[in-house]
Amino acid sequence: MQNIESPHRRIMSGSRPTGRQHIGHLFGALSNWVMLARDNDAFFEIADYHALTTGYEKTDALQSNIVEMVLDWLAVGIDPARSAVYLQSQIPEIAEMHLLLSMIVPVAWLQRVPTFKDQIAALGPEIATYGFLGYPLMQLVDIAIVRANAVPVGKDQLSHIELAREIVRRFNHLYGATLVEPQALLSEFPDVPGTDGRKMSKSYGNAIDLADDDATTTKKIRAMLTDPLKVRRNDPGRPEICPVFSLHNVVNAERVSAIEAACRSGELGCLDCKLELAARLNATIAPVRERRANIDPASIPALLANGAERARAIAVPTLADVKSAMKIG
Amino acid sequence: MQNIESPHRRIMSGSRPTGRQHIGHLFGALSNWVMLARDNDAFFEIADYHALTTGYEKTDALQSNIVEMVLDWLAVGIDPARSAVYLQSQIPEIAEMHLLLSMIVPVAWLQRVPTFKDQIAALGPEIATYGFLGYPLMQLVDIAIVRANAVPVGKDQLSHIELAREIVRRFNHLYGATLVEPQALLSEFPDVPGTDGRKMSKSYGNAIDLADDDATTTKKIRAMLTDPLKVRRNDPGRPEICPVFSLHNVVNAERVSAIEAACRSGELGCLDCKLELAARLNATIAPVRERRANIDPASIPALLANGAERARAIAVPTLADVKSAMKIG
Repeated sequence: MQNIESPHRRIMSGSRPTGRQHIGHLFGALSNWVMLARDNDAFFEIADYHALTTGYEKTDALQSNIVEMVLDWLAVGIDPARSAVYLQSQIPEIAEMHLLLSMIVPVAWLQRVPTFKDQIAALGPEIATYGFLGYPLMQLVDIAIVRANAVPVGKDQLSHIELAREIVRRFNHLYGATLVEPQALLSEFPDVPGTDGRKMSKSYGNAIDLADDDATTTKKIRAMLTDPLKVRRNDPGRPEICPVFSLHNVVNAERVSAIEAACRSGELGCLDCKLELAARLNATIAPVRERRANIDPASIPALLANGAERARAIAVPTLADVKSAMKIG
Repeated sequence: MQNIESPHRRIMSGSRPTGRQHIGHLFGALSNWVMLARDNDAFFEIADYHALTTGYEKTDALQSNIVEMVLDWLAVGIDPARSAVYLQSQIPEIAEMHLLLSMIVPVAWLQRVPTFKDQIAALGPEIATYGFLGYPLMQLVDIAIVRANAVPVGKDQLSHIELAREIVRRFNHLYGATLVEPQALLSEFPDVPGTDGRKMSKSYGNAIDLADDDATTTKKIRAMLTDPLKVRRNDPGRPEICPVFSLHNVVNAERVSAIEAACRSGELGCLDCKLELAARLNATIAPVRERRANIDPASIPALLANGAERARAIAVPTLADVKSAMKIG
């Protein structure tokens, strides 16, 4: 947990506004953010510019997605009195710094980022807009403009942080030490499957949302597929291929060995297993749902304005430093 | 001179801050600007972001280059009380709009701009930074953010205006009619050779600056190469290969036929021909030099601040329209 370079650690992370968050988000990034925000200065950004890199054609839901996501962030325990929670597009300095840094970043550096080619393969060549190509640069700007020195990431984001560090080193080499080289805080996140066994994702329609009520959650879990060879209640099951068991692993750790044994022996039927999972998950999420129900969505704009003010308190002087180093403006 | 689409014409043009302007600038873009600014709303931008697209590594002279260029603009007759004269980096809305529009511009559109490949061939592959690639998009933003509908250009810039129009059409198609599609005002500029016969350019060291005094100008003209076959004063010369004659063409139109005949016949020696050119050029530039000498360089920052205010009076609502159309922010 110690940062060798600096006794003071400033965390920065963010997420595209995808709307209501699901339990994959909670047991992935969000729990980690809540933990990190306890002992560190933290900046959490709603990356609405990033949402445009692949979603520029359909922006009708953007504003409601922002509100729903912030409600979930607050509900899981992000404390806006402690951490800055802000909307990327409300920090105009990000756009300015992005334009300035664009001048020193070779196109080839951006083209070689693995996600660039992966996403073109997945989404088609028409996704390759100029903004999409610049997306890892924008990530670096998000980090550098608030002078964050630590960025919690999963393995899939490591190459972006490496590029971010490379851009910072190039800038500091060209213009003198100005920007902070961020460190990756590699986090191991549990594998949270969706109700169909694939990775939980809103776009797969297999998500259990934090804001789902108990009945909806129970219904979604009851409809989950389990081991197809466990046809009758007393047939032995194979937990290692069962997404219900994977979810027990995430939310029901102390009972997992017992459940595994009972499933394998045929002692535990799938319905009982699912109902236990649903009860346990609902109990775990209950405080989140209760907090969410008590937040007035009308309070979000003021909260974001306050977060933007806090982020800009650092972004404005950082941009001034960048301009001064580059001798522009 | 009439714009078919709109009875009101708003001109926008700009130039990278290259420092002192030379007579190639005067007889090229600047005279045209002065003429256009008489009858039209006009916006003249010092494109300091653009200067970074190829000059990001050496920015020491940027600020003095800006002041020297503005002094020349004023000296040739750009009237800051009538036209907005402003520094690109002082319009933060340009960076924001550039980032927003970057999302909809295919990388392939930018890669196919002829100047992109030409400059890589001329300056080496390391010039291809992300900012350099985005340079034609930035030009469109410069134009669109002040809602200019007419852009004076030479032939070499026509492909940029075509791309600018294409980006505007794509934006308006995706989000509804928001941006003005600019028209190119194609201008024929005289060919102004430098003292070595190549195109006049600061980087070739062959320029006669507007701010040169009479003696310096005369000295530069006296040192010019003429027809190498005209060795003795009375040898016949070939005006069509002589850069001194090309400059007569630009500044001494009413005497050009007589000079051509006298050169061909051997009646006119090169020294006399040069001294006539120097006298004529100095007389032409005298009012420019006089105006320049009377401008206090210390007044430039306030002048640019005023210009930025006028540009932002349009840029701020234009950016708001763009954000509203894209449903962001």
